[in-house]
Amino acid sequence: MVQYADLDASFAALSDATRRGVLEQLGRADASITELAGKFRMTLTGMKKHVGVLEQAGLVTTQKVGRVRTCKLGLRGLGEEAAWIERHRQLWDARFDELDKVVEELNRKEKADARKNGE
Amino acid sequence: MVQYADLDASFAALSDATRRGVLEQLGRADASITELAGKFRMTLTGMKKHVGVLEQAGLVTTQKVGRVRTCKLGLRGLGEEAAWIERHRQLWDARFDELDKVVEELNRKEKADARKNGE
Repeated sequence: MVQYADLDASFAALSDATRRGVLEQLGRADASITELAGKFRMTLTGMKKHVGVLEQAGLVTTQKVGRVRTCKLGLRGLGEEAAWIERHRQLWDARFDELDKVVEELNRKEKADARKNGE
Repeated sequence: MVQYADLDASFAALSDATRRGVLEQLGRADASITELAGKFRMTLTGMKKHVGVLEQAGLVTTQKVGRVRTCKLGLRGLGEEAAWIERHRQLWDARFDELDKVVEELNRKEKADARKNGE
Protein backbone atom coordinates (compact mmCIF):
# COMPACT_ATOMS: atom_id res chain seq x y z
CA MET A 1 0.00 0.00 0.00
CA VAL A 2 3.05 2.25 0.26
CA GLN A 3 3.09 2.38 -3.52
CA TYR A 4 -0.49 3.72 -3.56
CA ALA A 5 0.31 6.49 -1.09
CA ASP A 6 3.34 7.38 -3.24
CA LEU A 7 1.22 7.73 -6.35
CA ASP A 8 -1.32 9.82 -4.40
CA ALA A 9 1.41 12.23 -3.30
CA SER A 10 3.18 12.49 -6.64
CA PHE A 11 0.03 12.97 -8.75
CA ALA A 12 -1.18 15.59 -6.22
CA ALA A 13 2.22 17.30 -6.49
CA LEU A 14 1.86 17.37 -10.30
CA SER A 15 -1.63 18.90 -10.16
CA ASP A 16 -0.30 22.46 -10.00
CA ALA A 17 1.22 24.38 -12.93
CA THR A 18 3.81 26.14 -10.73
CA ARG A 19 5.01 22.87 -9.24
CA ARG A 20 5.28 21.31 -12.71
CA GLY A 21 7.22 24.42 -13.77
CA VAL A 22 9.61 24.04 -10.81
CA LEU A 23 10.28 20.42 -11.82
CA GLU A 24 10.98 21.52 -15.41
CA GLN A 25 13.30 24.23 -14.12
CA LEU A 26 15.20 21.83 -11.84
CA GLY A 27 15.45 19.44 -14.78
CA ARG A 28 17.63 22.07 -16.43
CA ALA A 29 19.61 23.25 -13.39
CA ASP A 30 19.55 23.27 -9.60
CA ALA A 31 18.11 26.46 -8.12
CA SER A 32 17.67 28.16 -4.75
CA ILE A 33 14.22 28.86 -3.30
CA THR A 34 14.89 32.59 -3.86
CA GLU A 35 15.71 32.03 -7.54
CA LEU A 36 12.60 29.89 -8.01
CA ALA A 37 10.41 32.47 -6.23
CA GLY A 38 11.81 35.17 -8.57
CA LYS A 39 11.34 33.08 -11.68
CA PHE A 40 7.73 32.24 -10.87
CA ARG A 41 6.93 35.72 -9.45
CA MET A 42 5.91 34.32 -6.13
CA THR A 43 6.60 35.13 -2.48
CA LEU A 44 9.32 33.12 -0.72
CA THR A 45 6.64 31.66 1.57
CA GLY A 46 4.52 30.57 -1.40
CA MET A 47 7.48 28.95 -3.14
CA LYS A 48 8.60 27.22 0.08
CA LYS A 49 5.16 25.61 0.31
CA HIS A 50 5.28 24.36 -3.29
CA VAL A 51 8.81 22.99 -2.82
CA GLY A 52 7.65 21.34 0.42
CA VAL A 53 4.90 19.47 -1.46
CA LEU A 54 7.39 18.33 -4.12
CA GLU A 55 9.87 17.30 -1.41
CA GLN A 56 7.23 15.28 0.47
CA ALA A 57 6.44 13.43 -2.76
CA GLY A 58 10.16 12.61 -3.20
CA LEU A 59 10.33 14.57 -6.46
CA VAL A 60 12.70 17.24 -5.11
CA THR A 61 15.45 17.32 -2.47
CA THR A 62 16.72 20.45 -0.78
CA GLN A 63 19.91 21.24 1.04
CA LYS A 64 20.62 24.31 3.15
CA VAL A 65 24.14 25.69 2.98
CA GLY A 66 24.51 28.84 5.05
CA ARG A 67 21.41 30.90 4.33
CA VAL A 68 20.70 29.44 0.91
CA ARG A 69 18.43 26.44 0.38
CA THR A 70 19.27 24.75 -2.90
CA CYS A 71 16.68 22.56 -4.63
CA LYS A 72 17.46 19.72 -7.00
CA LEU A 73 15.51 16.87 -8.53
CA GLY A 74 14.84 14.02 -6.10
CA LEU A 75 15.61 10.36 -6.62
CA ARG A 76 12.05 9.56 -7.75
CA GLY A 77 11.87 9.87 -11.51
CA LEU A 78 8.10 9.35 -12.04
CA GLY A 79 8.64 5.82 -13.34
CA GLU A 80 5.66 4.34 -11.48
CA GLU A 81 3.47 7.25 -12.55
CA ALA A 82 4.46 6.74 -16.19
CA ALA A 83 3.75 3.01 -15.87
CA TRP A 84 0.29 3.59 -14.37
CA ILE A 85 -0.67 6.05 -17.10
CA GLU A 86 0.71 3.75 -19.83
CA ARG A 87 -1.35 0.83 -18.52
CA HIS A 88 -4.45 3.02 -18.47
CA ARG A 89 -3.79 4.24 -22.01
CA GLN A 90 -3.67 0.66 -23.25
CA LEU A 91 -7.03 -0.13 -21.61
CA TRP A 92 -8.44 3.13 -22.96
CA ASP A 93 -7.22 2.37 -26.52
CA ALA A 94 -8.71 -1.11 -26.34
CA ARG A 95 -12.07 0.25 -25.15
CA PHE A 96 -12.26 2.79 -27.96
CA ASP A 97 -11.14 0.21 -30.52
CA GLU A 98 -14.10 -1.92 -29.42
CA LEU A 99 -16.39 1.08 -29.80
CA ASP A 100 -14.96 1.77 -33.28
CA LYS A 101 -15.76 -1.79 -34.30
CA VAL A 102 -19.35 -1.48 -33.05
CA VAL A 103 -19.78 1.81 -34.97
CA GLU A 104 -18.24 0.26 -38.12
CA GLU A 105 -20.54 -2.73 -37.86
CA LEU A 106 -23.59 -0.43 -37.47
CA ASN A 107 -22.49 1.62 -40.51
CA ARG A 108 -22.04 -1.53 -42.56
CA LYS A 109 -25.53 -2.77 -41.60
CA GLU A 110 -27.05 0.63 -42.37
CA LYS A 111 -25.47 0.68 -45.82
CA ALA A 112 -26.59 -2.89 -46.49
CA ASP A 113 -30.15 -1.97 -45.43
CA ALA A 114 -30.12 1.15 -47.62
CA ARG A 115 -28.96 -0.92 -50.58
CA LYS A 116 -31.68 -3.49 -49.94
CA ASN A 117 -34.37 -0.79 -49.70
CA GLY A 118 -33.02 0.87 -52.83
CA GLU A 119 -33.47 -2.29 -54.86
CA MET B 1 -3.47 28.11 -20.67
CA VAL B 2 -6.44 25.77 -21.06
CA GLN B 3 -3.98 22.93 -21.39
CA TYR B 4 -2.48 23.79 -18.00
CA ALA B 5 -5.86 23.78 -16.28
CA ASP B 6 -6.58 20.41 -17.91
CA LEU B 7 -3.38 18.92 -16.54
CA ASP B 8 -4.18 20.37 -13.10
CA ALA B 9 -7.59 18.67 -13.10
CA SER B 10 -6.44 15.33 -14.46
CA PHE B 11 -3.41 14.96 -12.18
CA ALA B 12 -5.61 15.96 -9.21
CA ALA B 13 -8.15 13.33 -10.31
CA LEU B 14 -5.37 10.71 -10.40
CA SER B 15 -4.13 11.57 -6.90
CA ASP B 16 -6.61 9.22 -5.21
CA ALA B 17 -6.35 5.42 -5.17
CA THR B 18 -10.14 4.92 -5.43
CA ARG B 19 -10.39 7.18 -8.47
CA ARG B 20 -7.48 5.37 -10.12
CA GLY B 21 -9.26 2.10 -9.31
CA VAL B 22 -12.49 3.37 -10.92
CA LEU B 23 -10.58 4.23 -14.11
CA GLU B 24 -9.02 0.74 -14.15
CA GLN B 25 -12.46 -0.79 -13.65
CA LEU B 26 -14.03 1.27 -16.45
CA GLY B 27 -11.10 0.29 -18.66
CA ARG B 28 -12.40 -3.27 -18.39
CA ALA B 29 -16.17 -2.58 -18.59
CA ASP B 30 -18.71 0.20 -18.14
CA ALA B 31 -20.34 0.23 -14.69
CA SER B 32 -23.13 1.97 -12.82
CA ILE B 33 -22.43 4.21 -9.82
CA THR B 34 -24.10 1.55 -7.63
CA GLU B 35 -21.82 -1.20 -8.98
CA LEU B 36 -18.74 0.98 -8.44
CA ALA B 37 -19.85 1.89 -4.90
CA GLY B 38 -20.27 -1.83 -4.16
CA LYS B 39 -16.94 -2.79 -5.66
CA PHE B 40 -15.03 -0.14 -3.72
CA ARG B 41 -17.09 -0.59 -0.52
CA MET B 42 -18.16 3.01 -0.47
CA THR B 43 -21.41 4.92 0.02
CA LEU B 44 -23.27 6.03 -3.12
CA THR B 45 -22.64 9.65 -2.11
CA GLY B 46 -18.90 9.04 -1.76
CA MET B 47 -18.70 7.30 -5.14
CA LYS B 48 -20.76 10.04 -6.81
CA LYS B 49 -18.21 12.59 -5.61
CA HIS B 50 -15.26 10.59 -6.98
CA VAL B 51 -17.01 10.05 -10.31
CA GLY B 52 -17.81 13.79 -10.39
CA VAL B 53 -14.10 14.63 -10.05
CA LEU B 54 -13.22 12.19 -12.86
CA GLU B 55 -16.03 13.60 -15.01
CA GLN B 56 -14.88 17.20 -14.49
CA ALA B 57 -11.40 16.17 -15.61
CA GLY B 58 -12.86 14.63 -18.77
CA LEU B 59 -11.63 11.15 -17.83
CA VAL B 60 -15.12 9.67 -17.36
CA THR B 61 -18.52 10.31 -18.91
CA THR B 62 -21.83 9.31 -17.34
CA GLN B 63 -25.27 8.79 -18.76
CA LYS B 64 -28.49 8.39 -16.83
CA VAL B 65 -31.02 5.96 -18.25
CA GLY B 66 -34.08 5.62 -16.03
CA ARG B 67 -32.73 5.42 -12.49
CA VAL B 68 -29.33 4.04 -13.39
CA ARG B 69 -26.31 6.27 -14.07
CA THR B 70 -23.79 4.38 -16.20
CA CYS B 71 -20.13 5.44 -16.18
CA LYS B 72 -17.69 4.87 -19.02
CA LEU B 73 -14.23 6.13 -19.91
CA GLY B 74 -14.23 9.68 -21.26
CA LEU B 75 -12.68 10.90 -24.48
CA ARG B 76 -9.49 12.09 -22.76
CA GLY B 77 -6.96 9.30 -22.82
CA LEU B 78 -4.19 10.84 -20.64
CA GLY B 79 -2.04 11.53 -23.70
CA GLU B 80 -0.92 14.99 -22.54
CA GLU B 81 -0.24 13.67 -19.05
CA ALA B 82 1.92 10.84 -20.45
CA ALA B 83 3.78 13.36 -22.65
CA TRP B 84 4.48 15.69 -19.72
CA ILE B 85 5.81 12.85 -17.55
CA GLU B 86 7.91 11.47 -20.43
CA ARG B 87 9.51 14.87 -21.00
CA HIS B 88 10.27 15.15 -17.30
CA ARG B 89 11.75 11.65 -17.24
CA GLN B 90 14.14 12.57 -20.03
CA LEU B 91 15.32 15.69 -18.15
CA TRP B 92 15.59 13.63 -14.98
CA ASP B 93 17.66 10.92 -16.71
CA ALA B 94 19.95 13.54 -18.21
CA ARG B 95 20.47 15.20 -14.80
CA PHE B 96 21.35 11.92 -13.13
CA ASP B 97 23.61 10.91 -16.03
CA GLU B 98 25.53 14.15 -15.46
CA LEU B 99 25.78 13.31 -11.78
CA ASP B 100 27.00 9.79 -12.61
CA LYS B 101 29.73 11.26 -14.76
CA VAL B 102 30.85 13.60 -11.98
CA VAL B 103 30.96 10.69 -9.51
CA GLU B 104 32.87 8.51 -12.02
CA GLU B 105 35.35 11.30 -12.63
CA LEU B 106 35.88 11.73 -8.87
CA ASN B 107 36.38 7.96 -8.46
CA ARG B 108 38.91 7.92 -11.29
CA LYS B 109 40.86 10.80 -9.74
CA GLU B 110 40.78 9.13 -6.34
CA LYS B 111 42.15 5.88 -7.77
CA ALA B 112 44.82 7.76 -9.71
CA ASP B 113 45.83 9.63 -6.54
CA ALA B 114 45.93 6.38 -4.54
CA ARG B 115 48.15 4.80 -7.19
CA LYS B 116 50.47 7.80 -7.18
CA ASN B 117 50.72 7.74 -3.37
CA GLY B 118 51.33 3.98 -3.46
CA GLU B 119 54.31 4.36 -5.78
